[in-house]
Amino acid sequence: MSSHPIIELTSPASWAMIEDKFSPFAKETLAKLIKFQQEEVWPAMRVYHAQLPDGAERWQTVIPVMADLKKRARALGLWNLFLSKAHYPAHGVPLTNLEYAVMAEVLGRGGHAASETVNCSAPDTGNMEVLARYGSPEQQKKWLVPLLNGEIRSSFAMTERFVASSDATNIRTSIRQEGDEIVINGHKWWISGAGDPRCAVHLVLGKSDAQNADRYRQQSIVLVPADAPGVRVVRPMKVFGYDDAPEGHCEIIYDNVRVPLSNLVLGWGKGFEIIQGRLGPGRIHHCMRSIGAAQNALDLMLARVTDPSRKTFGKYLYEHGTVIADIAKSRAEIESARLLVLSAAIQIDKYKAKGALKEIGIAKFVVPSMALQVVDRAMQAFGAEGVCQDQTLAATWAGLRTLRFADGPDAVHIQQIGQRELKRAPEVTRRFDEVRKREKEVFAKYGVNAHL
Amino acid sequence: MSSHPIIELTSPASWAMIEDKFSPFAKETLAKLIKFQQEEVWPAMRVYHAQLPDGAERWQTVIPVMADLKKRARALGLWNLFLSKAHYPAHGVPLTNLEYAVMAEVLGRGGHAASETVNCSAPDTGNMEVLARYGSPEQQKKWLVPLLNGEIRSSFAMTERFVASSDATNIRTSIRQEGDEIVINGHKWWISGAGDPRCAVHLVLGKSDAQNADRYRQQSIVLVPADAPGVRVVRPMKVFGYDDAPEGHCEIIYDNVRVPLSNLVLGWGKGFEIIQGRLGPGRIHHCMRSIGAAQNALDLMLARVTDPSRKTFGKYLYEHGTVIADIAKSRAEIESARLLVLSAAIQIDKYKAKGALKEIGIAKFVVPSMALQVVDRAMQAFGAEGVCQDQTLAATWAGLRTLRFADGPDAVHIQQIGQRELKRAPEVTRRFDEVRKREKEVFAKYGVNAHL
Amino acid sequence: MSSHPIIELTSPASWAMIEDKFSPFAKETLAKLIKFQQEEVWPAMRVYHAQLPDGAERWQTVIPVMADLKKRARALGLWNLFLSKAHYPAHGVPLTNLEYAVMAEVLGRGGHAASETVNCSAPDTGNMEVLARYGSPEQQKKWLVPLLNGEIRSSFAMTERFVASSDATNIRTSIRQEGDEIVINGHKWWISGAGDPRCAVHLVLGKSDAQNADRYRQQSIVLVPADAPGVRVVRPMKVFGYDDAPEGHCEIIYDNVRVPLSNLVLGWGKGFEIIQGRLGPGRIHHCMRSIGAAQNALDLMLARVTDPSRKTFGKYLYEHGTVIADIAKSRAEIESARLLVLSAAIQIDKYKAKGALKEIGIAKFVVPSMALQVVDRAMQAFGAEGVCQDQTLAATWAGLRTLRFADGPDAVHIQQIGQRELKRAPEVTRRFDEVRKREKEVFAKYGVNAHL
Amino acid sequence: MSSHPIIELTSPASWAMIEDKFSPFAKETLAKLIKFQQEEVWPAMRVYHAQLPDGAERWQTVIPVMADLKKRARALGLWNLFLSKAHYPAHGVPLTNLEYAVMAEVLGRGGHAASETVNCSAPDTGNMEVLARYGSPEQQKKWLVPLLNGEIRSSFAMTERFVASSDATNIRTSIRQEGDEIVINGHKWWISGAGDPRCAVHLVLGKSDAQNADRYRQQSIVLVPADAPGVRVVRPMKVFGYDDAPEGHCEIIYDNVRVPLSNLVLGWGKGFEIIQGRLGPGRIHHCMRSIGAAQNALDLMLARVTDPSRKTFGKYLYEHGTVIADIAKSRAEIESARLLVLSAAIQIDKYKAKGALKEIGIAKFVVPSMALQVVDRAMQAFGAEGVCQDQTLAATWAGLRTLRFADGPDAVHIQQIGQRELKRAPEVTRRFDEVRKREKEVFAKYGVNAHL
Repeated sequence: MSSHPIIELTSPASWAMIEDKFSPFAKETLAKLIKFQQEEVWPAMRVYHAQLPDGAERWQTVIPVMADLKKRARALGLWNLFLSKAHYPAHGVPLTNLEYAVMAEVLGRGGHAASETVNCSAPDTGNMEVLARYGSPEQQKKWLVPLLNGEIRSSFAMTERFVASSDATNIRTSIRQEGDEIVINGHKWWISGAGDPRCAVHLVLGKSDAQNADRYRQQSIVLVPADAPGVRVVRPMKVFGYDDAPEGHCEIIYDNVRVPLSNLVLGWGKGFEIIQGRLGPGRIHHCMRSIGAAQNALDLMLARVTDPSRKTFGKYLYEHGTVIADIAKSRAEIESARLLVLSAAIQIDKYKAKGALKEIGIAKFVVPSMALQVVDRAMQAFGAEGVCQDQTLAATWAGLRTLRFADGPDAVHIQQIGQRELKRAPEVTRRFDEVRKREKEVFAKYGVNAHL
Repeated sequence: MSSHPIIELTSPASWAMIEDKFSPFAKETLAKLIKFQQEEVWPAMRVYHAQLPDGAERWQTVIPVMADLKKRARALGLWNLFLSKAHYPAHGVPLTNLEYAVMAEVLGRGGHAASETVNCSAPDTGNMEVLARYGSPEQQKKWLVPLLNGEIRSSFAMTERFVASSDATNIRTSIRQEGDEIVINGHKWWISGAGDPRCAVHLVLGKSDAQNADRYRQQSIVLVPADAPGVRVVRPMKVFGYDDAPEGHCEIIYDNVRVPLSNLVLGWGKGFEIIQGRLGPGRIHHCMRSIGAAQNALDLMLARVTDPSRKTFGKYLYEHGTVIADIAKSRAEIESARLLVLSAAIQIDKYKAKGALKEIGIAKFVVPSMALQVVDRAMQAFGAEGVCQDQTLAATWAGLRTLRFADGPDAVHIQQIGQRELKRAPEVTRRFDEVRKREKEVFAKYGVNAHL
Repeated sequence: MSSHPIIELTSPASWAMIEDKFSPFAKETLAKLIKFQQEEVWPAMRVYHAQLPDGAERWQTVIPVMADLKKRARALGLWNLFLSKAHYPAHGVPLTNLEYAVMAEVLGRGGHAASETVNCSAPDTGNMEVLARYGSPEQQKKWLVPLLNGEIRSSFAMTERFVASSDATNIRTSIRQEGDEIVINGHKWWISGAGDPRCAVHLVLGKSDAQNADRYRQQSIVLVPADAPGVRVVRPMKVFGYDDAPEGHCEIIYDNVRVPLSNLVLGWGKGFEIIQGRLGPGRIHHCMRSIGAAQNALDLMLARVTDPSRKTFGKYLYEHGTVIADIAKSRAEIESARLLVLSAAIQIDKYKAKGALKEIGIAKFVVPSMALQVVDRAMQAFGAEGVCQDQTLAATWAGLRTLRFADGPDAVHIQQIGQRELKRAPEVTRRFDEVRKREKEVFAKYGVNAHL
Repeated sequence: MSSHPIIELTSPASWAMIEDKFSPFAKETLAKLIKFQQEEVWPAMRVYHAQLPDGAERWQTVIPVMADLKKRARALGLWNLFLSKAHYPAHGVPLTNLEYAVMAEVLGRGGHAASETVNCSAPDTGNMEVLARYGSPEQQKKWLVPLLNGEIRSSFAMTERFVASSDATNIRTSIRQEGDEIVINGHKWWISGAGDPRCAVHLVLGKSDAQNADRYRQQSIVLVPADAPGVRVVRPMKVFGYDDAPEGHCEIIYDNVRVPLSNLVLGWGKGFEIIQGRLGPGRIHHCMRSIGAAQNALDLMLARVTDPSRKTFGKYLYEHGTVIADIAKSRAEIESARLLVLSAAIQIDKYKAKGALKEIGIAKFVVPSMALQVVDRAMQAFGAEGVCQDQTLAATWAGLRTLRFADGPDAVHIQQIGQRELKRAPEVTRRFDEVRKREKEVFAKYGVNAHL
């Protein structure tokens, strides 16, 4: 058999299916990434949480171990792996979406912070893509370069409080020009990363032309320095009790915030276009990280149910009830979800995100539910310990749960995929009609009558 | 985009994932197979059923349209596609398991009889594999050659009535030597193909050495001509009311049947070894045909729910209830199951069936349930018409339902996969322990205390 | 504990919940019914099927054992138990819907034919209700009396071929007056009972006033003698592979059928009103029979998995995989579904079918899926034997499957229940608003500020 | 229709099924409880949380609004409703288990703290039952009376860290006599209520006779004052991110804690007997509160999806995707689960907990999963707001999740119910055999042959 270390962390069959699509560089980088995560990052994750203080300081702390890990990763050449040179020639690394997808699964095993060690964590990744693709030279110099260097962090301010903002036409934040300035007023929440002391810039989506007949031209995006007067971070929103410090998901009021006109991204009315372009590969990254989280949960479950100190009534945990069946199902579900996402990544590599919308959409609604189920089974195997702060499972579950509505709720994606399938109906019907037509000829040829 | 006709029948993403593993010959053969099935086979399937008489003749009829289609297929070079030259150099065709897997999906769209048109239908396929691998030259000449030519058919007699024969040690049929003859006594049922007038030979599994301490050496397989004295076909077993004529799944009594010693396959006590070797690729074929059946059901559903003549209360069927969501889920489930089976096929091509046991096992328990669910949703869209003789859905469902226990019930495969996963536990535990060990060093390095 | 024989066939807890709502007569009748079914009917069911010939006679045979059982049941006073005196004072028996519901479960254990032994089988039951409630004295004398006596049988002709007839406004059958006659032209299918040689009358639904602005006044129902000229039974529709002889579900063409004007039921334009009134309690009966079928399947599974002759690898079937968990879930699902239907029956007894629409609707979509799942698990425990003619499970499953669309597909009932729940929204919202209002007072009282 | 206010909060059909089992006192008390909860408790719940400080004070605070609500409840006669006079004549209130079960559902709508307002919150309820049944007069005077008065709180210390303590024989805490004192050493966690400043006593389970051949006689329970020297509360365990202050689920080390011999409950070796007796009705209470939580979540969902300010793309939320179907299913699932638990409560009232083990076990594994699913659907309807601190749904979900392993994981209860069902197998088999025997007679009588 082939012997890359990825096999042990994922599966031989998925690797056999894609191995020949990996460049030597990608294989080597992947091996290096695995070694770095296993030997340096995963052992540091509890220290990371322990270095985070309680109280107000919680939001003012640059966590020492993370700073060290980032330095180390950069030295190893494990940096900005998400940014494919094929799509971002000026700034990218020579990795395809497929190749990074496998790396994203490895990162997903270590929890949210593991991605940051290699400067691949949301929302910075999407923001860097936006700035690399649409930013002016000045914007790139000021914000993209330090982001690529991991010196600052950023947030993407779209979701609004009291508003059903998954329909972008409901957005109420106003972005208007006054002289050579832009004035922003709005009330956002769930702005990830905005609580971080390193967060230097917000990409704010708002309405700049609410009356435009084309509802997809009403929105613009503007760069707002985090310390601009009028930017008020109200509070962190919690997810199942977790505040996700130091980054947080913050409620923010923009109260007459003023920035220079040059902070407009791409142009007036380009907001919707930008958010559309930002989504495709990012969704695949989320999916692969989720698969990594699920795979890690299954591995934790394997360790738990074979732990001799957990025997009850003289039997290992795996000898009770439906544990073995749960493990088999989890394995099968992870395996098939992984292949689904990898096939979407290949589709993106071949036909860009636009040519992979169906595959991305399917992955988007299939993977989080799958991962939630696998993690839930692992939690059940751990009992009370599984839902508490001593294991990562509950926090992982909570994070995964948000993926069922982030970037659009499951139902929206399911409807879109269903609608896309319906577009196949005319061709499918034509094919069946053709068979029926020929069928009549065959009946005639053989002189058979049928009740048709 | 790439433009092979398979894309329309399966999906662009799965094709993109495997296209570069297809030889030019395989691509061309696949295209030819699709054309033949669409234009000649599918339009003939109702005639096939209409040519089957009622009453006793039902079991004595060679169906004219099938005979013609087989001639045609052979002329087109679409013949014995299942038999991979890589594993059967003397008799095989130059196709990999992966390449045939995709063809098997195409065959699966046409129902059970479609596979026969290209001489690829069970149980003949498995029997040909057995004879090609283990048969003596004499046995090959007498039985394998006419099977490869599609001149005769065959059956595999393993399951026994009144016996839990999924545990082969429970087998009661006796096979014993008397002089230069073998005498067979036993009571089998569910012997597929034995009702067919063309069925010329049974491969009968029985106990030849019930006292052997090695329970996997107690069984032998012997070739029994269908017309040997003492072979009594009692009745066809029905599956949900279907008799599956002309092949049937028959109850058979072997009453002092005598065959020459040369009819023993491979040697005394080799029965278990033979049935093990017979299973791997065959399971993948079943899975791919099931996926074809599911994909066809989804396509039928698409045609139905967009049919203007089926509108109720002023709306298309797809505008009601959860139809669109059902379609989206079906699509996603088919897509992921297909990738799972294709990855198992690649694994077989790379590492033989023995190196693909986990992947085959997962496919074996995942695919039938998936396909049943998809077909069931389609039936629901068709209402009463969906469960009756005017559509293929109910018969398809019934056939798929048997796959949840044929070759071992789901539960057995689920347990085996679970047990195989458990074998990963020591290595997984070692990895977690290693992380914990390094973690202590990191805690020490940063001078942090934690409640561990 | 209480000691009625029903406990052993259903459950102690459900009986404890309803026992005090049973009259002494009902308790006694129930006990008599159980004894009759167990000792005389269930042992006769295979003979019933064996007495049914193959070929054309299949549809011309009055099955001897059934005729005898009906005589016996009538002599025992077990007759027309479905017809509650409370709602049908002239013809009914002194049983409530709740009391009959429990009896219907007992009948459901014996398969479809068991209900006929006590003259309680569809579609006769619904037709008797229609004639008892809406029939003229002449109609009652001619059709209701022999139906109540079990001398003839009947069918209800509503569903149409090539038409989405679940929307009654799509009905195409024409019913028009010519002089003192009514002329019927139409193409129906799935007309249950119409294949039976004893079927004497069809209740035919058609359009008598297609232009009526009120779409619920366009339909009428007319009584058509089965032997009227122009009534042509085309063929039986099969459910999966079953023809359900001798009753069948027939395709029928009404070709210029003429009946006297007095055969009109209730009046012109009353068709929709009649079919609405026909549905409520009948749905509950179907549900309870389905629960009986599920309970019987679970009992069969219990017997199978503890059968020592079915051991594999040295273990009972129940010791393998998830069998015990499957049994536990089946028990729980049956138990909760039973309570759901019994509570709907009580609701009907208290508030008529109109006051129990939500409960009936819930039962209608919950019970068939539940029963299918339980029967499917039992089939799986039986392996191949479970899907064939030697066990009742597959035929039971096929019959239950039709209940997911008969009288309206699941989706319609689910949507209706959902819509009914939505009607609670204003009151629910008002309640939450009230809490929010008082909440502000409490905040003020305690001088606390909150981020609301 | 009947008009009790409970109907609006639960369902007309479940009330119709049990109304006649309610005493006038119970009906009146229930009405009073509903009014109190709706008008005073539910509007106070956010204030309750707002009055809880951050930091260390969090665990030292008696929350003012709770103190006031308890006074008010007691004045209204809404107090200790869980303690049925039938089982606890000296201290109980005249309510059956069924009657309190309905009240527990009402309490469950208000979240965990609502039960405390009427002195019905775990673990005090179970502890009061223990002391009322097994406590010495001295123990009752010292601990039971102030608990009944709501003056102190208590905890039950059973679960141990590093130990699979769901198997009580694994318990490591040692309880041994030294002179006229008892010495306790052990390491517990997940001890609910132990963080509360009002917690005055722990009921500690430990091994007093680890060598006893009867493994159910090795344990004893001893009363430990919360402020006894050597009792060290280490930290609160979190459930997901929630610390559930002020009560908490604490890790506790008992380090050479000494109490007088008179603090032993019931006698040496009686620990297992006591915990068994403690479980039955308590499980039903948990179930009914869970059902209340689920019903409340469904109501929140109804309000949300009909909220005009939440429209997207011009449509109400309920007009999108599968929302209506989700609502219908939630309604059906709540309804059937409620009936299941009510029937278990009736069973307890009739036959004590020992006669209701199957019904209690079914409820135990069915209800939490059902409630989790309903709450999850509601969360999904709320999007990000659903998982955060502004709605109760996420905290409710997290609390419900613990019920899938508290008092034994689902799998244990499922296995027990499955095993109990298997005990029916001999009787069921006997019944089928009897039918088969009579069947032969019927075949003979009618002169029919069958392939049996």
